[in-house]
Amino acid sequence: MNSPAHPGPGGHQAGTAPNAVTSGPIAGSRKVYAAPASHPSLRVPFREIAVSDPQQPTVRVYDPSGPYTETDARIDLEAGLPSVRESWIAARGFPTVAGRAVQPEDNGGVGPDRLVAPCPARRTLRAGQPGALVTQFEFARAGIVTEEMIYVAHRENLAREQALGPASARLADGEAFGAAIPAFVTPEFVRQEVALGRAIIPANINHGELEPMAIGRNFLVKINANIGNSAISSGVAEEVEKLVWAIRWGADTIMDLSTGRNIHNIRSWIIRNSPVPVGTVPIYQALEKVGGDPVKLGWEVFRDTLIEQAEQGVDYFTIHAGVRLHHVPLTASRVTGIVSRGGSIMARWCLAHHRESFLYERFEEICEIMRRYDVAFSLGDGLRPGSIADANDAAQFAELETLGELTKIAWDKGCQVMIEGPGHVPMHKIKVNMDKQLALCGEAPFYTLGPLTTDIAPGYDHITSGIGAAMIGWYGTAMLCYVTPKEHLGLPDRNDVKTGVITYKIAAHAADLAKGHPAAQVRDDALSRARFEFRWEDQFNLSLDPDTARAYHDATLPKDAHKVAHFCSMCGPKFCSMQITQDLRKEVRAMEAEQLAGMEAKSREFLDQGAALYVPVQE
Amino acid sequence: MNSPAHPGPGGHQAGTAPNAVTSGPIAGSRKVYAAPASHPSLRVPFREIAVSDPQQPTVRVYDPSGPYTETDARIDLEAGLPSVRESWIAARGFPTVAGRAVQPEDNGGVGPDRLVAPCPARRTLRAGQPGALVTQFEFARAGIVTEEMIYVAHRENLAREQALGPASARLADGEAFGAAIPAFVTPEFVRQEVALGRAIIPANINHGELEPMAIGRNFLVKINANIGNSAISSGVAEEVEKLVWAIRWGADTIMDLSTGRNIHNIRSWIIRNSPVPVGTVPIYQALEKVGGDPVKLGWEVFRDTLIEQAEQGVDYFTIHAGVRLHHVPLTASRVTGIVSRGGSIMARWCLAHHRESFLYERFEEICEIMRRYDVAFSLGDGLRPGSIADANDAAQFAELETLGELTKIAWDKGCQVMIEGPGHVPMHKIKVNMDKQLALCGEAPFYTLGPLTTDIAPGYDHITSGIGAAMIGWYGTAMLCYVTPKEHLGLPDRNDVKTGVITYKIAAHAADLAKGHPAAQVRDDALSRARFEFRWEDQFNLSLDPDTARAYHDATLPKDAHKVAHFCSMCGPKFCSMQITQDLRKEVRAMEAEQLAGMEAKSREFLDQGAALYVPVQE
Repeated sequence: MNSPAHPGPGGHQAGTAPNAVTSGPIAGSRKVYAAPASHPSLRVPFREIAVSDPQQPTVRVYDPSGPYTETDARIDLEAGLPSVRESWIAARGFPTVAGRAVQPEDNGGVGPDRLVAPCPARRTLRAGQPGALVTQFEFARAGIVTEEMIYVAHRENLAREQALGPASARLADGEAFGAAIPAFVTPEFVRQEVALGRAIIPANINHGELEPMAIGRNFLVKINANIGNSAISSGVAEEVEKLVWAIRWGADTIMDLSTGRNIHNIRSWIIRNSPVPVGTVPIYQALEKVGGDPVKLGWEVFRDTLIEQAEQGVDYFTIHAGVRLHHVPLTASRVTGIVSRGGSIMARWCLAHHRESFLYERFEEICEIMRRYDVAFSLGDGLRPGSIADANDAAQFAELETLGELTKIAWDKGCQVMIEGPGHVPMHKIKVNMDKQLALCGEAPFYTLGPLTTDIAPGYDHITSGIGAAMIGWYGTAMLCYVTPKEHLGLPDRNDVKTGVITYKIAAHAADLAKGHPAAQVRDDALSRARFEFRWEDQFNLSLDPDTARAYHDATLPKDAHKVAHFCSMCGPKFCSMQITQDLRKEVRAMEAEQLAGMEAKSREFLDQGAALYVPVQE
Repeated sequence: MNSPAHPGPGGHQAGTAPNAVTSGPIAGSRKVYAAPASHPSLRVPFREIAVSDPQQPTVRVYDPSGPYTETDARIDLEAGLPSVRESWIAARGFPTVAGRAVQPEDNGGVGPDRLVAPCPARRTLRAGQPGALVTQFEFARAGIVTEEMIYVAHRENLAREQALGPASARLADGEAFGAAIPAFVTPEFVRQEVALGRAIIPANINHGELEPMAIGRNFLVKINANIGNSAISSGVAEEVEKLVWAIRWGADTIMDLSTGRNIHNIRSWIIRNSPVPVGTVPIYQALEKVGGDPVKLGWEVFRDTLIEQAEQGVDYFTIHAGVRLHHVPLTASRVTGIVSRGGSIMARWCLAHHRESFLYERFEEICEIMRRYDVAFSLGDGLRPGSIADANDAAQFAELETLGELTKIAWDKGCQVMIEGPGHVPMHKIKVNMDKQLALCGEAPFYTLGPLTTDIAPGYDHITSGIGAAMIGWYGTAMLCYVTPKEHLGLPDRNDVKTGVITYKIAAHAADLAKGHPAAQVRDDALSRARFEFRWEDQFNLSLDPDTARAYHDATLPKDAHKVAHFCSMCGPKFCSMQITQDLRKEVRAMEAEQLAGMEAKSREFLDQGAALYVPVQE
């Protein structure tokens, strides 16, 4: 994916200053850091939305946007973000290593005149050793609660104390399809989930800037946004801005799908400045290194690319090791064949060489490399359906079975694993995808692209897929990969990225609500109260996109006075159903008071009459 | 709802000429009329999408847009549309009537200087008689198949002959939750569904311009768009344009929610020029007639308004007769009280008078009026939840129970009935709404507003509700009332209306696919084949919104040559997964051919050796 320059609204713009990205709080919010009582030194980020009614509490929401949304954010891209994890990682005693030397092909063979310099931020480069604990999975299985787990627990508990009624009642009100969402997330619960393979904390030991987060169906549903380099970049700030913009609106992880020139160096800027996990598809860069011909790929260049990216600090790799030689003919009668880029690369390779995939054959070696840095697996669904016609076919489920087999190998090797899923699936065929994935992959987290529930709306595929994403998120998918309005048609611009992220925040939140997540409804209720009480500013600020909500209101009623008016543009000042309801509520209360007064009068009468149970007949 | 003037793209614009509305075909399509073999005089409208590959058939889609999308559409708003149904209605022998005289308050008491003249189109005004068959329901129960039923059957069968495999297999592939979608829709099937009350054909005997359509869960899922007058209108063409614009993109019915000045006369323009059923909420106009004070409402003014609108040709009325006095206190502890405008009007009335609703008490009289013109009931859900917190509460379900009771009364009186539904409902509480509605209302068609699956995204409520709409459509809702991006915030403009309609077409189509509708997947498959074969123009034209799809593609690859290029902007010319898959398919075919050749060689060898089952050991 490439992205053009950034038009559109919001904060400081990339390009206005050489080193500037969008910063400052989202309207009506402020960044806060909080720590669990047991670990006062942790600084876990949240966003607090102020509410104008002093009787109402502020609303605390999950916040993946990093230091960029601090009030006086001081961002220095050359220095990178402060390292949240440095002291934790340092204490684990990983050896420092010299690291692989950068090769010209890492940057697509760009000439010196067009070479973008790497990020100058210096970091200690580390690699884990065989036998020692390295990955979050290994620590978890050894019974050790890491700082990352403590951090994640506090982060996931947001706002539970504000929720009405006991958490158990809210959980019971939801339908979680066998998920085991706890009333309260403890560090030990996080450890157990990671140890069981039901959650991952993507956290490369060389990505200290990361604010740890968890992906698993017993946690909040997460979303991913894809970003990529521009063909002609005006500078690294523009590339980092894509990350900053996506996380500002709620992306929990980003995947850097860049190809071509300068990708190694630009990636260094992105990772040093990313507070969220960064995922990549290493086969894309490996393919570049062999001149774009899949047939020329091989283990050596792939292995070299894995090490290159792992040392840089990439947190998860999509590895299409489930595309096996004997799966390929299963796709021949499909309407849309193989639509995954990684899947088609590997299918091409297998067919051209008439050999089993080197990713499959070398899978244990891949595990060993990824374990060394704690790079999590995102086992790619190279044979995902590209159309409604191909949904849930033999090729797709044959690959899923292989992914289940590989999950167990990766776990045995100490790696964290999630599984990628479709794609294009009509509504009635979505749930079986989730059920099969849970059964075949031992409850490893599912990470799906949509799915799109129809093929007939290019230009609106954020919506066709947002429907499927909400449903599969409800059924148990742990992370949803966003789709923008430009899907199938072109490259997303800044507005498309925002629309995609907001759409997927809707899907993820709708899923959390339906699962009965104990804190999810706090925000809905706060916004609904604001709506009912005509607190317009609160309604805007509590929304996923305050800027758009305010702009839409302004389009009809632009005056400031209207922001406190007890009516809205739908019914006008003369008649408002909300206002009527409020009048009515007063009357109901008056009626109740009257009834109470009546009962009290009756009661007095009763007492006056001597409190006899039967009143003597007046004769 | 009021609408501002119309910015935005598309065809001839209202206001550019005194009598002009958007007309002409949707890009890449043409209007066709077809008749069932048994009734060659019928002209049932479809839209045919041309495909550039001569090996592929054109795709026929359902088309509610009326004559406006004919190639040389000749629209004369003053004459109104040609009457599709005049000869059918005339043959039924309804008496002509003089009709109620128009009163100044019908037009909101507007002075002569600002009075908009009524549509001059002359029509015979008719009213049915007691004892004679009038409504589609009465004809159906009498075993009579009307022309409307024949028309609907042909309309609903679209493209079934193009679908792959037997219809029974496609139905079996879906999950319809007890719906009884037939392999082929016959006029007799339509009659049965109408007779059972499971479908309605909203078709006022004074709305001859109507192209008949059915609403029922065994037919294609339909969508409604709301329109309304502008505070300052530049002319009637602007008002009619709102209708024309909504049906152009796929609205199957429209509701005219106008209030204020000139509404009677503007409504005459809308109905005379509407090929789709027009619904209204008569209590809105009745309220205007009593100066906007709900307490002053009463049976006389309401009855007068029903007759006024029924004579004009309105096809269905929202009647909030389910809001009873004893329901009102059930809403007092809600987070958002009563959010339905009609519901809050009636609650206000009941409470102020401490009396049962006159709509409930006079329900049989309402039935008698509506039956006379075959105005269908849309029994309003005045107590629908306005927030996630209030979903599925006692007030909502108490009203639904009353609506079930009223359904039976309306049927006994010969009326067609559908039931309005929520609103704001989290995903896990949607299905029970459908199940309860089916059980309580005797399978009368359900007509829901969304539902919105979360409250936290004002500005994106077409999406929060599109998710719920797709799901409840799948579960059995017959018609989905659209929501625009401006919901809760302001008045939708032209672009918002289009976005709302397209979003709801997505939801309705996703539901049809999931239910296993025999013809639904034809369009998905045609578009997916076009996508796979790089037929870009076909991909645009087969989409719900060809203009937007083309514009998005142009934004990245504007050159005409790119419209036939065998790559897209996502992967660029160097590498394309679709292209690789096509290469791969050739290789698989070659492999298969090789295997076949190998088997033939073996076979020949076998025969050459005398076809002995065992080859003698070479000694």
